Amino acid sequence: MSEKCDFGLIGLAVMGENLALNVESRGYRVAVYNRTTEKVDEFIAGRAAGKNFIGCHSLQEMVDNLATPRKVMMLVKAGPAVDAIIDQLIPMLSPGDVIIDGGNTHYADTERRTKHVEENGLLFCGTGVSGGEEGALKGPSMMPGGSEASWPIVKPIFQAIAAKVGPSNDIPCSEWVGPRGAGHYVKMVHNGIEYGDMQLICEAYLLLKEVGGLSNAEMYDVFAEWNKGELQSYLIEISRDIFSVKDEESGDDLVDKVLDVAGAKGTGKWMSQLALDLGVPSTLVTTAVFARSISAQKEARVRASAVLNGPSDVDLSALAGGKKEFVDAVRQALYASKICSYAQGFVQLQAAAKEHDWPLNYGDCALLWRGGCIIRAQFLDTIKEAFDADPNLENLLLNEYFTKAIQASQAAWRKVVSISALAGIPVPAFSSALAYYDSYRSARLPANLLQAQRDYFGAHTYKRVDMEGTFHSDWITLRKQPEE
Amino acid sequence: MSEKCDFGLIGLAVMGENLALNVESRGYRVAVYNRTTEKVDEFIAGRAAGKNFIGCHSLQEMVDNLATPRKVMMLVKAGPAVDAIIDQLIPMLSPGDVIIDGGNTHYADTERRTKHVEENGLLFCGTGVSGGEEGALKGPSMMPGGSEASWPIVKPIFQAIAAKVGPSNDIPCSEWVGPRGAGHYVKMVHNGIEYGDMQLICEAYLLLKEVGGLSNAEMYDVFAEWNKGELQSYLIEISRDIFSVKDEESGDDLVDKVLDVAGAKGTGKWMSQLALDLGVPSTLVTTAVFARSISAQKEARVRASAVLNGPSDVDLSALAGGKKEFVDAVRQALYASKICSYAQGFVQLQAAAKEHDWPLNYGDCALLWRGGCIIRAQFLDTIKEAFDADPNLENLLLNEYFTKAIQASQAAWRKVVSISALAGIPVPAFSSALAYYDSYRSARLPANLLQAQRDYFGAHTYKRVDMEGTFHSDWITLRKQPEE
Repeated sequence: MSEKCDFGLIGLAVMGENLALNVESRGYRVAVYNRTTEKVDEFIAGRAAGKNFIGCHSLQEMVDNLATPRKVMMLVKAGPAVDAIIDQLIPMLSPGDVIIDGGNTHYADTERRTKHVEENGLLFCGTGVSGGEEGALKGPSMMPGGSEASWPIVKPIFQAIAAKVGPSNDIPCSEWVGPRGAGHYVKMVHNGIEYGDMQLICEAYLLLKEVGGLSNAEMYDVFAEWNKGELQSYLIEISRDIFSVKDEESGDDLVDKVLDVAGAKGTGKWMSQLALDLGVPSTLVTTAVFARSISAQKEARVRASAVLNGPSDVDLSALAGGKKEFVDAVRQALYASKICSYAQGFVQLQAAAKEHDWPLNYGDCALLWRGGCIIRAQFLDTIKEAFDADPNLENLLLNEYFTKAIQASQAAWRKVVSISALAGIPVPAFSSALAYYDSYRSARLPANLLQAQRDYFGAHTYKRVDMEGTFHSDWITLRKQPEE
Repeated sequence: MSEKCDFGLIGLAVMGENLALNVESRGYRVAVYNRTTEKVDEFIAGRAAGKNFIGCHSLQEMVDNLATPRKVMMLVKAGPAVDAIIDQLIPMLSPGDVIIDGGNTHYADTERRTKHVEENGLLFCGTGVSGGEEGALKGPSMMPGGSEASWPIVKPIFQAIAAKVGPSNDIPCSEWVGPRGAGHYVKMVHNGIEYGDMQLICEAYLLLKEVGGLSNAEMYDVFAEWNKGELQSYLIEISRDIFSVKDEESGDDLVDKVLDVAGAKGTGKWMSQLALDLGVPSTLVTTAVFARSISAQKEARVRASAVLNGPSDVDLSALAGGKKEFVDAVRQALYASKICSYAQGFVQLQAAAKEHDWPLNYGDCALLWRGGCIIRAQFLDTIKEAFDADPNLENLLLNEYFTKAIQASQAAWRKVVSISALAGIPVPAFSSALAYYDSYRSARLPANLLQAQRDYFGAHTYKRVDMEGTFHSDWITLRKQPEE
């Protein structure tokens, strides 16, 4: 029998292939398996040719080829397939072996599976993997959770393949997140923040185009410039790139040929639904999810556009002022909104950690997202510093750096939201971020009227500002009797 | 044995007592039961004294006292208690008998229970009941769904006790909604719209107070005036009343003493979560739910208010213009936002009906909400007319009346949202309604950039505006190569 392998990988779709190649490139020997076994042979004869791989035609063959403690990673479609593979693997493995799920799994499934696998004497690791195809190949962000004892076993490989950040480029974007479903929850929040970032960038683009009158070439320059400052991030960078791509057929700008219908895979929806369950106001991700659903109703929008009017007599250039000034105002609105979005994401993480008893390190979460993943951005360094300085920071907005950043941006942010309302440009994420900021900083909100209404019609009771206790009033008797 | 009863009611909390008294007042004999049987004796000796009731100390005693086909209604806490009672009742009842659930039940439970009860040879009716305590006693709105064959059996009683509307006050606010969970789904959407209405009214109140500088006495007059026009509704009416109520201790206005922390019971959350599942943009209810969750973080808000600044140098009176003009602008913003909220509610109903194969009549839904319930409002007549004229109307905004109503209000609506952004007044519902309107009427949204991003980093593919098919581009190769 040949030399044993260090790592097993199940599922040779693009992400799986790339991750397997990444692991092998760090000096490990990798066993691969795919249910459709032709895929294994193709891979071994193709991209894996001459490399340190063993292609397996059955799970048993893969298991037999792994050195103990075995590390078997699934990169298959989230859902029942994962349960099926787990149940096939359990009798084949030995105590100390680790089953790893690298898919986009709902955290509740990972909670359940960790328990199930541990009850069968094995270890489970549910890890978020972000970075798309390129990240998987060259260095993703990895967010592992599950059985605590799995971490020392998978850590060397995870940290070898992960993206590296830091001044010396040697800090791996993979660190233990927490027990059970914590890793997949953090990955879900990453994706939800990604939804927010993308929607905010789209709103900036819409404003620059419709109000600022920028061409795609000008947009390229603006995004290139933005990518040198506090907005520096992967998503700004690829947006810049997109504005430079020409349609190969017509030679026109390709972005103008792309249909304005956004798809979604579900993690943004999960985060929104869980925020509603937790009672935390993650308005940015939810706004972004709803914005995608409106975008998907393309034909209905085209019909509506013929019936529903916008504002009349809008002088866009008068509203916007100078082009350069407007571009800079949009930049500030984007930055301030982005800060609110990240603040909400961390608040949701804190609420989930409390509910599930996960000892999360929020500075580490920021670090995991610093490289490899889709939301990687310079300002995550500042977020890490904020949580390192105060691990119990209740809201990112209360960190001095971010307080000042919003303070510096808010006049422009308010102006941009105001202009959008007057001009009829939909900016749901910019405006819901602003409403969040203004709500959160309000010692007094109008919910007193709402509680009075609830007590009036449903005897739901209310509390008072001036004394302890729970009260109910007979509003109908106490009210000024209406004239008949 | 005494004369048989026409109706059985289980659960003598306030809603149950009031509904039982309502049924009895229409000439029916009613058997009542409560798990804590002292409650039965108290009721019979108290509010039911001298009336046509039988108090029962067991479910069996109640069933024995009912004429067939038996009609047994539960008004108990939604959840496992309902299942437990159903399973106790099933062996006691005979074919043709109807079990009715009048609680705030999740529609999915009613889907399941209808099937379960029918499989046991009986009929099930899951009915939404709205109107609070007073409605239950004097005439609620009733939204029944479940086994189709249950409707002729419960209809005479439901229509007798329901609120009446129409020119001759003889149209009952109770009509068959649809099979299985349809009734509870419609009730949930009613509650979600109620969340939206309440939040919108709170935002109007906040603006009138903070920007308009209105006293509570002036607020009373404004709401009294609004209640005579197109905003006429129960929630405007009780808001008016609330502004007139004095604190009995201090003599100050009671509304100012009420703590600004809003509670919630969950139906708004359900509607939001289901909208996310359906992919329909019910942004108003979701915004309202999140606004309640921010309100609930009172202490965090008080802390944040000491750190986070608002806009500086805002001249509120210059922004607002004349008081009278501003009040009228707020009225128009409220009306336009409310139209969007109802439009979203009906879109969600249509999507749910399609998903669950419920043949809903949307005009009837509007009629059910015309009286008795919390969102009862004059403009539901217009909504009914809109759906009667076009049962397949895809969005209320496309009905000529509402198209024109928004057209007439939009300048003021935009001004109010713009002022709020500049003044630092949080109006999440006004602004998300406006963003919805402006998104929906946009033939072209910026989601083309978003799809390009998704294709760039994740090969998610895109469609094009100028040709059929699904495309993927190698953006990295095609992009302008960045200078190093």
